[in-house]
Amino acid sequence: MAAESNGGADMESLTQPLLRSQRSSVINSTSQVAMVGANVCPIESLDYEIAENDFFKQDWRARGKVQILQYMFMKWLLSFLIGVIVSLIGFFNNLAVENIAGIKFVVTSNMMLAKRYSAAFLVFGISNFVLTLFPAVITSYVSPAAAGSGIPEVKAYLNGVDAPGIFSLQTLVVKIFGSISAVASSLFIGKAGPMVHTGACIASLLGQGGSKRYRLTWKWLRYFKNDRDRRDLITSGSAAGIAAAFRAPVGGLLFALEEMASWWRSALIWRAFFTTAVVAIILRALIDFCLSGKCGLFGKGGLIMYDVTSTDVMYHLSDVPPVLILGFVGGLLGAFYNFLLAKVLRLYSLINEKGAINKILLACWISIFTSCLLFGLPWLASCKACPADAGEACPTIGRSGNYKKFQCSYGEYNDLASLIFNTNDDAIKNLFSKDTDSEFQWSSLIIFFLTCFFLSIVSYGVIVPAGLFVPVIVTGASYGRLVGMLMGSHSNLNHGLFAVLGAASFLGGTMRTTVSLCIILLELTNNLLLLPLMMVVLLISKTVADAFNENIYDIIMKAKGFPYLENHAEPYMRQLTVGDVVTGPLQTLNGIEKVGNIVYMLRNTRHNGFPVVDEPPMSVSPVLFGLILRAHLIELLKGRAFSPTPEYMDSDMLGQFSANDFAKKGSGHGDSIEDIEFSEEELAMYVDLHPFTNASPYTVVETMSLAKALVLFREVGLRHVLVIPKLSGRSPVVGILTRHDFMPEHILNLHPSLLRSRWKRLRFQFPSIFKLF
Amino acid sequence: MAAESNGGADMESLTQPLLRSQRSSVINSTSQVAMVGANVCPIESLDYEIAENDFFKQDWRARGKVQILQYMFMKWLLSFLIGVIVSLIGFFNNLAVENIAGIKFVVTSNMMLAKRYSAAFLVFGISNFVLTLFPAVITSYVSPAAAGSGIPEVKAYLNGVDAPGIFSLQTLVVKIFGSISAVASSLFIGKAGPMVHTGACIASLLGQGGSKRYRLTWKWLRYFKNDRDRRDLITSGSAAGIAAAFRAPVGGLLFALEEMASWWRSALIWRAFFTTAVVAIILRALIDFCLSGKCGLFGKGGLIMYDVTSTDVMYHLSDVPPVLILGFVGGLLGAFYNFLLAKVLRLYSLINEKGAINKILLACWISIFTSCLLFGLPWLASCKACPADAGEACPTIGRSGNYKKFQCSYGEYNDLASLIFNTNDDAIKNLFSKDTDSEFQWSSLIIFFLTCFFLSIVSYGVIVPAGLFVPVIVTGASYGRLVGMLMGSHSNLNHGLFAVLGAASFLGGTMRTTVSLCIILLELTNNLLLLPLMMVVLLISKTVADAFNENIYDIIMKAKGFPYLENHAEPYMRQLTVGDVVTGPLQTLNGIEKVGNIVYMLRNTRHNGFPVVDEPPMSVSPVLFGLILRAHLIELLKGRAFSPTPEYMDSDMLGQFSANDFAKKGSGHGDSIEDIEFSEEELAMYVDLHPFTNASPYTVVETMSLAKALVLFREVGLRHVLVIPKLSGRSPVVGILTRHDFMPEHILNLHPSLLRSRWKRLRFQFPSIFKLF
Repeated sequence: MAAESNGGADMESLTQPLLRSQRSSVINSTSQVAMVGANVCPIESLDYEIAENDFFKQDWRARGKVQILQYMFMKWLLSFLIGVIVSLIGFFNNLAVENIAGIKFVVTSNMMLAKRYSAAFLVFGISNFVLTLFPAVITSYVSPAAAGSGIPEVKAYLNGVDAPGIFSLQTLVVKIFGSISAVASSLFIGKAGPMVHTGACIASLLGQGGSKRYRLTWKWLRYFKNDRDRRDLITSGSAAGIAAAFRAPVGGLLFALEEMASWWRSALIWRAFFTTAVVAIILRALIDFCLSGKCGLFGKGGLIMYDVTSTDVMYHLSDVPPVLILGFVGGLLGAFYNFLLAKVLRLYSLINEKGAINKILLACWISIFTSCLLFGLPWLASCKACPADAGEACPTIGRSGNYKKFQCSYGEYNDLASLIFNTNDDAIKNLFSKDTDSEFQWSSLIIFFLTCFFLSIVSYGVIVPAGLFVPVIVTGASYGRLVGMLMGSHSNLNHGLFAVLGAASFLGGTMRTTVSLCIILLELTNNLLLLPLMMVVLLISKTVADAFNENIYDIIMKAKGFPYLENHAEPYMRQLTVGDVVTGPLQTLNGIEKVGNIVYMLRNTRHNGFPVVDEPPMSVSPVLFGLILRAHLIELLKGRAFSPTPEYMDSDMLGQFSANDFAKKGSGHGDSIEDIEFSEEELAMYVDLHPFTNASPYTVVETMSLAKALVLFREVGLRHVLVIPKLSGRSPVVGILTRHDFMPEHILNLHPSLLRSRWKRLRFQFPSIFKLF
Repeated sequence: MAAESNGGADMESLTQPLLRSQRSSVINSTSQVAMVGANVCPIESLDYEIAENDFFKQDWRARGKVQILQYMFMKWLLSFLIGVIVSLIGFFNNLAVENIAGIKFVVTSNMMLAKRYSAAFLVFGISNFVLTLFPAVITSYVSPAAAGSGIPEVKAYLNGVDAPGIFSLQTLVVKIFGSISAVASSLFIGKAGPMVHTGACIASLLGQGGSKRYRLTWKWLRYFKNDRDRRDLITSGSAAGIAAAFRAPVGGLLFALEEMASWWRSALIWRAFFTTAVVAIILRALIDFCLSGKCGLFGKGGLIMYDVTSTDVMYHLSDVPPVLILGFVGGLLGAFYNFLLAKVLRLYSLINEKGAINKILLACWISIFTSCLLFGLPWLASCKACPADAGEACPTIGRSGNYKKFQCSYGEYNDLASLIFNTNDDAIKNLFSKDTDSEFQWSSLIIFFLTCFFLSIVSYGVIVPAGLFVPVIVTGASYGRLVGMLMGSHSNLNHGLFAVLGAASFLGGTMRTTVSLCIILLELTNNLLLLPLMMVVLLISKTVADAFNENIYDIIMKAKGFPYLENHAEPYMRQLTVGDVVTGPLQTLNGIEKVGNIVYMLRNTRHNGFPVVDEPPMSVSPVLFGLILRAHLIELLKGRAFSPTPEYMDSDMLGQFSANDFAKKGSGHGDSIEDIEFSEEELAMYVDLHPFTNASPYTVVETMSLAKALVLFREVGLRHVLVIPKLSGRSPVVGILTRHDFMPEHILNLHPSLLRSRWKRLRFQFPSIFKLF
């Protein structure tokens, strides 16, 4: 056995810690600040710990049956409201996109019919340009946080990373209208990601409840003024977002749970299920209404729901090998896609750093480039004669349909235009459709696939709200169709099914989720019998792609510098003790502290938690009393419950505070220490911190391994963990662990020798060919 | 604001703990033993904590790339094997049931055709009797743990409760063959629950890997000798069980995650998804094979997969109100079902206590009673003329089909016999079938519904492997059909769809899961368009039923006395500190302890963890070194690394132990202290506990509220938490928290005054009318 065979060698190291020599040689002054290295913007950690100070206890004890009923009622009411609002926005979104893009295509097509090709191109190009310019401008100037898909931001938030401004009202408005305009502008981007962000925004704003400035906050909402309940609401909101984008209620729920959420429990599933059910029912009712033709160009095709085939899918074991290969290549393509996208994003960030004008210019250039491609490429395809047995009008004169006329004469259609000169939703519908095995030409599909692949990569990074889901589905579907044509008559599956499997493989290769993608695709295509094949494809493509890089959202999240806390420990974390990473000067407060000291400490550090230690005059030896949060200290100072001598606070003074003051403020709503003025006299007074201190913080002993401390930190969802010494007699607390201390960059920076050690990265990875680029 | 308005009254209590007066007046000598009040069988807790002793560290450090690859390879190999074996057993199970029950029904029907009614009844009754007797006998005498569904046991295991014998080889064998025989015996029981238990058993046995006695344990499996990896395997196994029972891979996975698992993470979803995909593919291949007719009577209907309808389901808002009412009543029925089942189980437990013979007699009586009912009731129904446009042969002469002849003449059929004198799978198929709105009579359906409802309640508790899923689906489907008939032509939904919704409502009312039931029913009926209605029905029925009692598995689990750790804290736990519940004499060991003391302590307590404290001669003041587990102490004593004087262990002595000795043994495989003999001389010697002690146990301060400690205990998955004093100078550890200390029974027993306090049960509940019974 390996452990025994080299037992002799290891025996010596048993009594020696691994890194003793380097200990305390590095000063890490940021270890109390929850923010990450490269990006110095004030990203804060969320705190899911129950801060058990006297005020919190008072609030708990005061909660009777009525309060608990209020709380439960509000939870369900908010879940219901999230469902209603998100589904209405999702519907409005689709309605607007279909109508705006529809009018654009109808006008252009009519000009094409009249053979006024250059006028058609001008109309097409200019409308796309304007539709791109609008979201680019509002995103740049009103809310830069609304750019991109938003899924990485929400995922980071649900992991406990609070990036500023991501859930503000401005972001919501920009996200909704920006997304509509950007999607309608024929940019090669999706609407699912922005819908997720929209859902999360709505959930956050509802939980925050109105404007505090105008005293509109409903007092029943005060129970939601903590990070735990906000987290639950935002999880439901993001589930509702996907549910509304794809009309996939169960898929949306599972996506939120599998991909987005870092913490969840049965009760949350159940409430999120309620939210997505509300979404499903409202969307169904609205679509029923639209079927009667009152929604303009929305028509039947609005919300994507591709009915692949209603006949039984029969496939045999002989169909499995091509599907395996499809999954394998799909995984490779997905990993390559992620790699390229990361490179392009890095390139774009250089451009974007140079100011808002450059961002907008970039968006404009991409729009012009896209218009040229979409209008120009179909000319490369030769016209095909309409099939005699076509199930629908050929060529299609209206907006959607399998057979676009474009420049062809009557009785013919342009297969490439049917895909490329169309909305993405319609392109997917064309690719997924059955009984159309001979519709597309080799050359057209190859051109379409390559266009999709590269155009979606260069389009994602522009400064507009932009999703990745739909572009990835289109690209994957065209890839699947190609495989289907390659198989020809050797397979029992028709090309539409190959397109579905291709989409699954490419989604698996980029997004890397399994169950939720499976269910989303099932709900999109309404075909359960494909399930086993879909599962195999997803498994293979995810496995293959995982060998090369991470999923696309994690890549974007890391590029943005969010300190995402992984669920698993890196191998070298087992070798390090907690004491190896917490170093630097620890700032502690006395149980009864001088106001001046507190103010000095708050102004000169950015720490968010301070250990409170009762020092000898108040106790026999220094005793750790607890941990006090910066926000609570500021509230306390604002109350000015000071006394001239060090003494315990009496109940009169306590009475001037209410538990509500100590509730967690929404992101960006907290006061800053710089806003409070103190007189010299006040600074010399004392304040009793005991009633405001969390008297039972979670602690770990300094000899605990970092991996084990991570389990506590991650599972319980903490912001601070106090590190206590192994031996008594020294200071009762030796440090504070924060999210920052678990970040690999921080640890490897503290202990560069780990970079060369064999524990650095033991995870299984193929020698990454992509690193050669 | 409420908190403010009574702030004055609460202000006084702020500085006073709630229960000071009662503190330490109650001696709780069992607080270190993880076992529950009423049942004194040795139920142990599982331990998901990383025990960081020197040996563990050695093992971790010794793991290089090769070991990690071994571990990863084994994880996937085991997931694959679980899938393969569970699907083969599931298929075998169905094949056997369909053939045994099929032959029985064919023989009986042939006799009925020949009008030899009493002979038919004799054959039917006697074969049922024998088929019931066999599982009753083997369950009673070979493995009583195999009785019932097994889902409560697996659920408790995944929560950290290790009941003895539930995953032994005997249990597996009894479960498989007992379930086949019992289901074939026309007892009104299901096969899904036993399949879940079978899957979990297989996963556990595979992870344990062969027999240790015969040295067959594969050394690559040593990485799985801990509770964390076993938990993961068993989660996958139970997912595979449902997947195989219903051929619902995604539904099975979600059921395992939503209902069974207490802990899970993304990586686990992904591996369990792989397992259920393997199940789906193998089952598909086997069924393809059987479609060629080589599986006897298995035929097309074997594994349940009810193709409800392939045409589009159209429904409008007017269909929603009846569906809401259906869900509401379904919830009431489900709650009533749970209530009755709990009562019957309590009654049966009185009978079962009187020995194996009584249990078997009970099973026999139920079998005879069932046979009489199934054979007798159809005589009450009048014969109906076959419809002219029947889609299939009428009357059906073979085994399955919608139109059973029973006693009727040619050209007629007995609708009640079509349901009741049939396997449950076929009854469900008949109820779910479309275009059969006029097939059933009012009277027949009412009789059938009542029979199902009460017969399944009395059948579940008999001493055979018995599931609840299928009986609940049958009962719910007949209820749904009744509602459909009541609606008549007022609804656009056909009666088959009403049956599906009825099954959903009754499942929601008893099982109380949402997403997984939704997906299981979708996979069973292959109709995605029903999804929104199904979601609404499940939501309503669960909400209604939750107001009355718990879900059926939790009721059974509590009746069995498993100390299940809930995810949420009871309101009164916020009022108690950890110090209020840990009392009683604490047993601590010295860092270097006399062998005699250890042996004495192990023999005279049943504690599973002991704090190790370094006392003054070895340190300046008493210092908490860590926590040592009973199992590790026993290994240490077995190694006899004693020294005559108190001294640290040298590396020679350490070398005689290997990390593998300290791996967690499988359930029931550990040694007992009673098995080891010590000489007088040895008892007077000393042993150094330091290298074997977990030097970084999780600790909480004694003033932490119980609710907050529960968060740590539950989220991290602990077995012991050390309680440290607030003030230093006293003993460095004041107690140990175990699972037992969080059980409401234990707490209310310690502090009876809480029973009368307003915090006792603040959870929202309707005044339970059932309590009047």
